[in-house]
Amino acid sequence: MRDLLPREVELRDSASAKILEVYTAFGFRRIETPALENIRLLAGSDGGENEKLIYKVLKRGAKLESVTPGRDDELADLGLRFDLTVPLARYYAHNHAHLPDPFKAIQIGPVWRAERPQKGRFRQFTQCDIDILGLASEVAEIELILATCEAIITLGLEHPRVRLNDRRILAAVANHCGVEPSRHAGFFVTLDKLDKIGREGVERELRAEGHAESAISRLRALLWPSDAHGRRAPHGGDVLDRLCREVPAIEPFGESLRTVVRTVEPEAGQRFDLDFDPTLVRGMGYYTGPIFEVAYAEDAAAIAGGGRYDRMIGKLLGREVPACGFSIGFERVILILQEKAGIHAGERQRIVVLFDGTESLPDVFATARRLRTGGQVVSLTLRKKNLGKQLDDLADEGFGGYVVYQRDVASPQVRPLVRRSLKAARETQEDPA
Amino acid sequence: MRDLLPREVELRDSASAKILEVYTAFGFRRIETPALENIRLLAGSDGGENEKLIYKVLKRGAKLESVTPGRDDELADLGLRFDLTVPLARYYAHNHAHLPDPFKAIQIGPVWRAERPQKGRFRQFTQCDIDILGLASEVAEIELILATCEAIITLGLEHPRVRLNDRRILAAVANHCGVEPSRHAGFFVTLDKLDKIGREGVERELRAEGHAESAISRLRALLWPSDAHGRRAPHGGDVLDRLCREVPAIEPFGESLRTVVRTVEPEAGQRFDLDFDPTLVRGMGYYTGPIFEVAYAEDAAAIAGGGRYDRMIGKLLGREVPACGFSIGFERVILILQEKAGIHAGERQRIVVLFDGTESLPDVFATARRLRTGGQVVSLTLRKKNLGKQLDDLADEGFGGYVVYQRDVASPQVRPLVRRSLKAARETQEDPA
Repeated sequence: MRDLLPREVELRDSASAKILEVYTAFGFRRIETPALENIRLLAGSDGGENEKLIYKVLKRGAKLESVTPGRDDELADLGLRFDLTVPLARYYAHNHAHLPDPFKAIQIGPVWRAERPQKGRFRQFTQCDIDILGLASEVAEIELILATCEAIITLGLEHPRVRLNDRRILAAVANHCGVEPSRHAGFFVTLDKLDKIGREGVERELRAEGHAESAISRLRALLWPSDAHGRRAPHGGDVLDRLCREVPAIEPFGESLRTVVRTVEPEAGQRFDLDFDPTLVRGMGYYTGPIFEVAYAEDAAAIAGGGRYDRMIGKLLGREVPACGFSIGFERVILILQEKAGIHAGERQRIVVLFDGTESLPDVFATARRLRTGGQVVSLTLRKKNLGKQLDDLADEGFGGYVVYQRDVASPQVRPLVRRSLKAARETQEDPA
Repeated sequence: MRDLLPREVELRDSASAKILEVYTAFGFRRIETPALENIRLLAGSDGGENEKLIYKVLKRGAKLESVTPGRDDELADLGLRFDLTVPLARYYAHNHAHLPDPFKAIQIGPVWRAERPQKGRFRQFTQCDIDILGLASEVAEIELILATCEAIITLGLEHPRVRLNDRRILAAVANHCGVEPSRHAGFFVTLDKLDKIGREGVERELRAEGHAESAISRLRALLWPSDAHGRRAPHGGDVLDRLCREVPAIEPFGESLRTVVRTVEPEAGQRFDLDFDPTLVRGMGYYTGPIFEVAYAEDAAAIAGGGRYDRMIGKLLGREVPACGFSIGFERVILILQEKAGIHAGERQRIVVLFDGTESLPDVFATARRLRTGGQVVSLTLRKKNLGKQLDDLADEGFGGYVVYQRDVASPQVRPLVRRSLKAARETQEDPA
């Protein structure tokens, strides 16, 4: 877990405000669920690997005392949520009577996973999801893709690229290759490694897992008809049309994806791409229909991903509710924004008023108030002995100007503060030697 | 714990944005600490009753297996934070090298306490604190009071009233009454009940606890010289001056409070009151100097409170760091705002575009986009069979206008939507019977 310094929080706050603004304009509304959920809900949620990483909260009082000795699995009754989708399904099952139909939810909040710490992975991190519940039409997919891409572009990440597939198309491809339904999941896991190990790597691994040679050659004939190499199969609308011709079972799902592409493309203009990709898999087992993922620049890892999961809510509610969601990888986006120069939240000028202990405090505070009414951030600070060092420190902290309080000067002049690094750069520049 | 519906989240988001805006203008900067802290930090923090309410997180793997059987106190290594002050002290001790001096922090975030649920109390709730670390002068108290009152007024809670006292004045009063230092804490706890049980009640309880009759009569002579009844002692600047004359040990702390009042009053103008109150106690044991509390309207309970705690950080850092903080009771403020009519976050007009499945989706989405560029919130919805009921539902959900999509109409007319309750009220009004 980590502490966030002011500069980090300001960037995060600014980013989530921009995302929220876009999502709100698309008619989504923010909800909140508690951090703690019943441990049974979390542990029985098809969450896969994540279920092993749940932080469990100890029972209390008499409940704790009545735990059977040695039964560590009985010690906890609550757990910290590991994602926002399982709590959303529980939330909808509880609150649907008070929610519009269909319901368009925004969730931005922390989740917890007891992972081994590594670069860019944290045990508490923020997720940022939109979901549409109660809408079976591809209108849901279209709105999610438009809103998510708009948000990403608004953050300053230009020209994102969306890959689109359908779990049912993947299943039809596996069937076409003669893979038994019970082995589909493993088949997809291997196919999902394409961008890491390439076509030959996928074929090698399928072979090692005991898939028939005929399955491998049918897969190659279908996805790589020109025997291309590389870490991506041929993709795009023409490929979808060809797959529909060669595997007729794909056609109804293909037609739905075509509607998505035809509707999104004029909205996207030149700002983002949307592309059918028959090898997009997405990890989660709960997807039931279209799936999508967003890539940015040359990054291999996705910055957003989602899909349709029509059967999750039904398990809690007793009747099926169609559902579709899109999640921005908030921590990854923040890392990218931190690396991009010049994107900072604190665009307002920050001014510091310096004074010593001898002046009239009411006058000092009145001066600060007058400066503040101009919309500026104004902070008061006692003058230190070494004023030069103090001014350098204040500049490095991000203050852009300072005022030394003087009695009887109602509108003092704000003088500029320059960061040490910039000062040094300027001095080097100005030095003709 | 509770789920928050969209309307609740919108009010909360709007309130915290307003608070954040004011605090930022005063030069405070937001930080974040993780929800989970080391259990030893939490359990050894002078947190009083709150320490009993910690949600403890179970150890994992080998660590859990090596717990001595029967030693339930060894089962947890992490806990959910029960306030934002203890984590702030830990944060400052860890990160002070990267923080300005003095450091002005904003924290808005959830805390957890395993309390019995009751009206207005939740097991997960939001706290909203500002703190100034590293500043021993009363400039800190003044900035905290000004910023907090400004934030409260900006929320629409007009004319808050601040009560001000000093822990050291309370100690001097207790000494003056002949109460031994070891019994001060209990003496203050009883005095703190004044607004519930009145002067006679306090005296009765002090007597029952075995305080000398002379202590009780000296207290009455000092705080109620005219033998007044009621749930508040005489208060204000004149009372402070009199106390300083009668108990000279109070004078240095009295002079400091006078500086606070003299500086805050011209800033407050007619917008809020600041008043010395010799019976203000504040619960927390960690306060070391000035303490303050804000009342609103006729509510007995405070909506904000704080004070100086100069010794907390020293315990973690090894050197003392002066510290002073002010916390807004966020949940209480939200309850007040919910009760006040007409304060709603979603001031932007929300429009819904209705369409059926037969139209060209690209055209429908283009219509929505054109409406959205006007700054409005625009949501797309499939038209249901019973359009009248659907329009009523949409109005009740907060939509203010609707458009029925029509082919070849590029700029459709937005028609108003009226909530069922308002409709009914109008019909009653218009009905001359």
